Amino acid sequence: MAQIKQVAITGGTHGNELTGVALLKHWRNHPNDVARGSFHTELHLANPKANSQCRRYLDQDLNRQFELSNLNDHSLCGYEQNRAKSLNALLGPKEDPRVDFVIDLHTTTANMGTSLIFNTDDPFVVGMAFYVQTKMPHATLFFDPIDRLEDNFLTSLGRHNGFLIEVGPVPQGLLRADVYLETKQAAEHCLDYIDAYNLGNLPDLPQSRSGYRFLEKVKLPENDMGELTAMVHPNLQDQDYQPINPGDPYFLTLSGETIPYQGDQAVYGAFINEAAYYDAHVGLSLMEKIEIKLKNAPIAG
Amino acid sequence: MAQIKQVAITGGTHGNELTGVALLKHWRNHPNDVARGSFHTELHLANPKANSQCRRYLDQDLNRQFELSNLNDHSLCGYEQNRAKSLNALLGPKEDPRVDFVIDLHTTTANMGTSLIFNTDDPFVVGMAFYVQTKMPHATLFFDPIDRLEDNFLTSLGRHNGFLIEVGPVPQGLLRADVYLETKQAAEHCLDYIDAYNLGNLPDLPQSRSGYRFLEKVKLPENDMGELTAMVHPNLQDQDYQPINPGDPYFLTLSGETIPYQGDQAVYGAFINEAAYYDAHVGLSLMEKIEIKLKNAPIAG
Repeated sequence: MAQIKQVAITGGTHGNELTGVALLKHWRNHPNDVARGSFHTELHLANPKANSQCRRYLDQDLNRQFELSNLNDHSLCGYEQNRAKSLNALLGPKEDPRVDFVIDLHTTTANMGTSLIFNTDDPFVVGMAFYVQTKMPHATLFFDPIDRLEDNFLTSLGRHNGFLIEVGPVPQGLLRADVYLETKQAAEHCLDYIDAYNLGNLPDLPQSRSGYRFLEKVKLPENDMGELTAMVHPNLQDQDYQPINPGDPYFLTLSGETIPYQGDQAVYGAFINEAAYYDAHVGLSLMEKIEIKLKNAPIAG
Repeated sequence: MAQIKQVAITGGTHGNELTGVALLKHWRNHPNDVARGSFHTELHLANPKANSQCRRYLDQDLNRQFELSNLNDHSLCGYEQNRAKSLNALLGPKEDPRVDFVIDLHTTTANMGTSLIFNTDDPFVVGMAFYVQTKMPHATLFFDPIDRLEDNFLTSLGRHNGFLIEVGPVPQGLLRADVYLETKQAAEHCLDYIDAYNLGNLPDLPQSRSGYRFLEKVKLPENDMGELTAMVHPNLQDQDYQPINPGDPYFLTLSGETIPYQGDQAVYGAFINEAAYYDAHVGLSLMEKIEIKLKNAPIAG
């Protein structure tokens, strides 16, 4: 496999997630923090207009616009659908990208800590996740493999399907120092990994680690008029990546009645009460716990 | 002092603070929760348009528009400046209001728990704060007396300067069940108090309680271009209503340097890292700790 020569770090893909935006500014003023000897790092504010208005997006979620068929569909012309094409020209084109790897910085209002989200079983990328987790053992691996050309995340624009660093909890529209420092650390570990990979200096990595794979989004209960009638139950609030067993408290109605989880086997919650999904009345994502395997040692050819 | 005959509960004064909005819906479907024998309760969504867009406001912060001189200034014609005049017609007019008392429901992204905010030393209102605190001992009293006609809060529209219930932490744009239940409980205790006051059934109340009074807002450090260069320090984050002593860590620059608090005496923080104030780069409010006295027993005449 070829060496990594060009890495893009992107932030502000969601305009009200300010941590990545602030880190880009910091790194522009302190380029040594992201400079490594064996490759070049470029920094991009992904959605400046949404960021200037401190909104997640103007027309569409930018981080759902990068499927190849959508990038090539010029009838899709909302603000973010156009911006995705512009980023594809800047970093891609997706079929044969200029940039080797994209690291995209996100935050969540959910109590998820540091999640390393990657959508490929490419040993180079799995190895990155395992490497960062050895440096930050509290980080959670969030793995949802999909063909890169069908992937709709910004991270799929690079030659390798990339890496999304998601840290929380932090409200939208502000910086928390703990979340900022955690995101900075995780991103800089990724760069260290890429440098070590290029130089053939990678440490031994584990062969397998636990992680979580997305199953489905769960909507909160609504009435006939589409209004919310219940909230995430207090016992479930903030319990991201913890098991939800059949019969466990799941929702609490506005009148105070508990609705239990009706599934027939344990699942795990993530993005519990994420503000960004609340307009669609999505209360949480259900995840399954999995073992993620490093198929081969990641070695640059 | 006259009995209280007409009470308004308002929510959604800030359109992205959904707790009050959900409680209004709940109470409309369960009117007995807010019905008391000795007065009438009315429920009002204060800023439906901002709420429908899940924004704090469209043009101006609605909860700063109720100073009498501004209500009477028809050159002030932003969306919320007009809406304030409409609410003044509905609940007031401020000089001689139809409504006796306004309870306004708010949330904060800061770790402030339940704050009972009132801007008058009127024994009826101070008594309400003390009463609610006897029922909810963890609640904090937030006291900032000002002449009612000069007060710019929605709560100042009633005959008595009213009561603002502020609960957090909760991100903007979602419901947390704990915050919802806490807000519901505090508001319903207020109604119980008013009913007991009207009926001459008030329990003995303390003569004095500790509380906090606003001193000043503190901006985060900026560079010459007006960009943030520092964040609230991790040691200060979430420490609302705790003392800040001279030399304590105050801010953390984006490069990781600690800036200490430079004041010469202890103060207390509130609204620490409140998302709503972040566009103005306000990092926190400084408060002084005070004793609040109940001058006379609140007795209806």
